[in-house]
Amino acid sequence: MLKINEERLIRDLNELAEIGATPDGGVSRSALTAKDIEGRAWYQAKIAEAGLDYTIDGAGNQSAILYSNPKSEKRILAGSHLDSVPNGGRYDGALGVLVAFEALRTLKDNGITPAITLEAVNFTDEESAIMGLMGSRAVVGQLSADDFNRTKISADELTRRFEAVGISRESMLQAKRDDVLAWVELHIEQGTRLEESGLNIGVVNAIVGIRSFNITFTGEAAHAGTKPMNLRKDALWGASQFVLRARQHIMENYTPGVCNVGKIAAKPGAFNIVPAEVDCALEFRHGSHEELEQMQADLLNLLEECASEFGLTVSYEATPHINPAPMSELVMEAIETASNTLNLTHKRMLSFAGHDTQTMANIVPSAMFFVPSVAGISHNPKEYTIDADCINGSNVMLHTLLGLLETMQ
Amino acid sequence: MLKINEERLIRDLNELAEIGATPDGGVSRSALTAKDIEGRAWYQAKIAEAGLDYTIDGAGNQSAILYSNPKSEKRILAGSHLDSVPNGGRYDGALGVLVAFEALRTLKDNGITPAITLEAVNFTDEESAIMGLMGSRAVVGQLSADDFNRTKISADELTRRFEAVGISRESMLQAKRDDVLAWVELHIEQGTRLEESGLNIGVVNAIVGIRSFNITFTGEAAHAGTKPMNLRKDALWGASQFVLRARQHIMENYTPGVCNVGKIAAKPGAFNIVPAEVDCALEFRHGSHEELEQMQADLLNLLEECASEFGLTVSYEATPHINPAPMSELVMEAIETASNTLNLTHKRMLSFAGHDTQTMANIVPSAMFFVPSVAGISHNPKEYTIDADCINGSNVMLHTLLGLLETMQ
Repeated sequence: MLKINEERLIRDLNELAEIGATPDGGVSRSALTAKDIEGRAWYQAKIAEAGLDYTIDGAGNQSAILYSNPKSEKRILAGSHLDSVPNGGRYDGALGVLVAFEALRTLKDNGITPAITLEAVNFTDEESAIMGLMGSRAVVGQLSADDFNRTKISADELTRRFEAVGISRESMLQAKRDDVLAWVELHIEQGTRLEESGLNIGVVNAIVGIRSFNITFTGEAAHAGTKPMNLRKDALWGASQFVLRARQHIMENYTPGVCNVGKIAAKPGAFNIVPAEVDCALEFRHGSHEELEQMQADLLNLLEECASEFGLTVSYEATPHINPAPMSELVMEAIETASNTLNLTHKRMLSFAGHDTQTMANIVPSAMFFVPSVAGISHNPKEYTIDADCINGSNVMLHTLLGLLETMQ
Repeated sequence: MLKINEERLIRDLNELAEIGATPDGGVSRSALTAKDIEGRAWYQAKIAEAGLDYTIDGAGNQSAILYSNPKSEKRILAGSHLDSVPNGGRYDGALGVLVAFEALRTLKDNGITPAITLEAVNFTDEESAIMGLMGSRAVVGQLSADDFNRTKISADELTRRFEAVGISRESMLQAKRDDVLAWVELHIEQGTRLEESGLNIGVVNAIVGIRSFNITFTGEAAHAGTKPMNLRKDALWGASQFVLRARQHIMENYTPGVCNVGKIAAKPGAFNIVPAEVDCALEFRHGSHEELEQMQADLLNLLEECASEFGLTVSYEATPHINPAPMSELVMEAIETASNTLNLTHKRMLSFAGHDTQTMANIVPSAMFFVPSVAGISHNPKEYTIDADCINGSNVMLHTLLGLLETMQ
């Protein structure tokens, strides 16, 4: 059975981890900063060394290409991203690019010319240093000129970073592709479901949708001594009740869906003043659009209940939503067949984090799969996936592509 | 029966309210700022006009004096403070000084020479613009040189403000008095107990002690998507549980004692990160030392319970405590007798706010009494006490002093 080159994969993974390495074993390669650019140059050189073709598109997305003969009109894409969060881990994204690249190298080494052209892609700015999922959004045509006015860096800095890799706002907006036939991505799980169940591969059946709200409970400021407790309208009482009841309701009715209150602040904010206002930030996630709608209805209703229980009012404002992305049955089955071929155990699961795959799913059959993360640690220098799981992941990628080539040609 | 001059009292009250007046009917006379100094000059002039004697001590405390003949060794003091919080009300403190001053004027007008010298005092910086209760603390000898290093204004600004009224850090530290026989203070209630019960006078039987703690619940930061809710150690869950359970426990077991969580913040503080830490500020008050001790034991125990319920740890640090100040039975009875004489209804109650009386109670028999506050509003331009209650308060002050002169001579 065809297998990837294990040693080469692990060697490359370690070599790449030296670029932007942090003292504690992690990496810092924010999108289009010097270290990310060094990583991109490394990838380009590796592609050349492998004898594969190389392109970079108007969004700065880099591809290793293994052409079919004759060159097919459409292409099957696989990959992930080489940029990292500041002080992040060495596997998030990087492993996904390298396993796809290794799969293409393996095919090339074995003299296999695919029936459909294959690409191993490094998407630009997945990790939100600039705006997040930027490269994949450009590819699916989801970027508008206005998006560049809302980046996390200044307009000048954006120009500098784009110029450093030979792209521009204009080239970004023209990077939409219509030659993609399918997309597949490997990622570390960033959770412990695989580790706890002892399984090798998590086949993602949906990437969760995310909704979030800024919430304000409003009561009445009062002297924390002279105002008897039964006459207070303490905004923190309502907010606390909401935190606990939302927790219980979501756990009991929407698991594996999740919710989080990640920010909270009381105003005016003094030892001796009853809180007049509490601002908090609510986020909830689910893989199903219908369930997400129902979660929202329940949670907004709960806000009103918790407010009125303590004589408060509550207001809220939604921030931009992210819709759930169901994965392609065809691509999931290719991943499962590949896992079975390799005698690797697997199950379907939700992805609770966002990935380029959710963007790609807008235009082509897409799916992704997880390999285990030790202790689920991610976005952290301690992020770790054992070599055997990296190798399994690359072999599953190889055979998934072989399966897709067969079913899609 | 001897009564104060109603018109004069109300006229003075309105006149004084023009000094530092805010557009919305309140006053801003922060201690030893220009407007406070203007108020002090006004008081000095009024004292001269009334033919009373005037002194200012090393702490800047001003007194109108009505001497006994021969001059007694010790003196009975009454009063409050003329400084206000920024954008405060016109009654808090000011009414207490004016009713005592009016009582002395009334005695003088009626040719009454008291058996013991009387003073109507304006204490410096009750409202914490500098350190709070500063003038009364100086009088009881509770100030140390180190206190001047912890003021809310800079050392230079402190020097400027002291010089503006002819005092200094040194004179402050030498302002301790040993010639005080008793202290009595009128204050607006800053609550609604009198208003709700339809009573005229609240006889304060204790000023509550105040304890406060900075609290930190510690859990584990986690990705708000990938970490299943049943595996989270969300610090906000413990803090929310504590807020609600402390509320219930104190209301059920310690009323009229009160507690408040007035500040709260989650770290790292993002929509998509499970709170690793929640810092909050707890304060609780009770009139009895024993109950306050028990409240503290219960609340600290509850902290541990709420933390362990969600797999968290909790740490806390006490801030400086304020001990409960029980009032003098002798002075309380003088207030009650005066109220009865004037056919005014009264009941005993706690003061949940701090006052100069709690400081004076350290060295001499002391008590205070409340007149109603409309809607309990205080530290606010809307603070309001109807004229009839101001007049009642001044008559009660007059007859309380007459009673004390009788029992203490």
